[in-house]
Amino acid sequence: MLTIALPKGSLLRDSIDRFQQIGLDFSAFLEPKNRQLQILDPTHRAKALLVRAWDVPVYVEYGQAQLGIVGYDILREKKPAVAQLADLNFGGCRLSVAVPQASPYRRSVDLPPHGRVASKFVHCALEHFRRLDLPVEIIPLYGSVELGPITGMSEAIVDLVSTGRTLQENGLMEIEVLFDSSARLIAHPLSYRVNGDRLLDWVEKLRSVI
Amino acid sequence: MLTIALPKGSLLRDSIDRFQQIGLDFSAFLEPKNRQLQILDPTHRAKALLVRAWDVPVYVEYGQAQLGIVGYDILREKKPAVAQLADLNFGGCRLSVAVPQASPYRRSVDLPPHGRVASKFVHCALEHFRRLDLPVEIIPLYGSVELGPITGMSEAIVDLVSTGRTLQENGLMEIEVLFDSSARLIAHPLSYRVNGDRLLDWVEKLRSVI
Repeated sequence: MLTIALPKGSLLRDSIDRFQQIGLDFSAFLEPKNRQLQILDPTHRAKALLVRAWDVPVYVEYGQAQLGIVGYDILREKKPAVAQLADLNFGGCRLSVAVPQASPYRRSVDLPPHGRVASKFVHCALEHFRRLDLPVEIIPLYGSVELGPITGMSEAIVDLVSTGRTLQENGLMEIEVLFDSSARLIAHPLSYRVNGDRLLDWVEKLRSVI
Repeated sequence: MLTIALPKGSLLRDSIDRFQQIGLDFSAFLEPKNRQLQILDPTHRAKALLVRAWDVPVYVEYGQAQLGIVGYDILREKKPAVAQLADLNFGGCRLSVAVPQASPYRRSVDLPPHGRVASKFVHCALEHFRRLDLPVEIIPLYGSVELGPITGMSEAIVDLVSTGRTLQENGLMEIEVLFDSSARLIAHPLSYRVNGDRLLDWVEKLRSVI
């Protein structure tokens, strides 16, 4: 049976919408009291797993799900061995460098050598500063990255920005965009190649509703 | 000013209780509508940062907080350069190996060589299986680790167990305990040594209410 890994959090509602448009209903995941981690579509043609966004590529890489939806930001950070099939055109945001408004830095290269940058996206941040030949120390954080500069632990952050409201509320300003991100449809490469569970038909249907 | 890193999640309420007992009130963090990440005690003697449990040792290691409260499980996994001062005797749980009830495995060594183990505690899990000379592949997950065996992605999990309810609900059983965990008081080593902000007085007070 076709198994799809869906991401908890901000991409969930739109992800479920897309599958509803092609006749697969996983909206039970949206019920506030839902505790289920896997549900069967009422037509019994597909199953969905509800997992952390960062775990979606893991389930797809190991073939436990043939399809998954995940942000491009996570694909860039984790570089999983999955096939990227389509940009789903929702969940738009960007990975950016931000600094305190009161700081003198207006571009990444203005940051002091051996300065500190807090981020959940350690690899993306490292890559960015390596490309600039600017040695910085990346401080890996799991949440509330904006506390880095507020507490004085870091000069800058590399974090996802959508409306910019969180930055503004915390006296930070975006100074450089690393890349734009949005929700992507990914597939287990082998399942895609051998067209298991008629995967290509489902992918075609999804592409038609983007 | 004394700065304390408090963990979001299950340890927060008890952590705030302990500080209330020594005259520092950070209960504003418990209000459902709270969005603040740092608050000042009403007596203006100390400040608290509200951060992810996994980030507490980071703020303490970098000296942005002189004190922090965090689970022993996280200290074992991340091995941060912080001083462990006291077992606070709450937040009790254990890091355990669990397998599907229907599986034939009853001890870690029963697991098949080169089997797969899903975990958020990658280093602890690796250490455990290395000590047994059993080569396994650790699959790093961020959440809902119990989905690993349910979907067939892994033979076992290494995860925190407190009541055992989650395991039971998912048809899993605990077969081996790696170690017991509870909330710990940690300090920035240098601040502790030089007794900055009269840190030792606060630590003494906290010890007296354990």
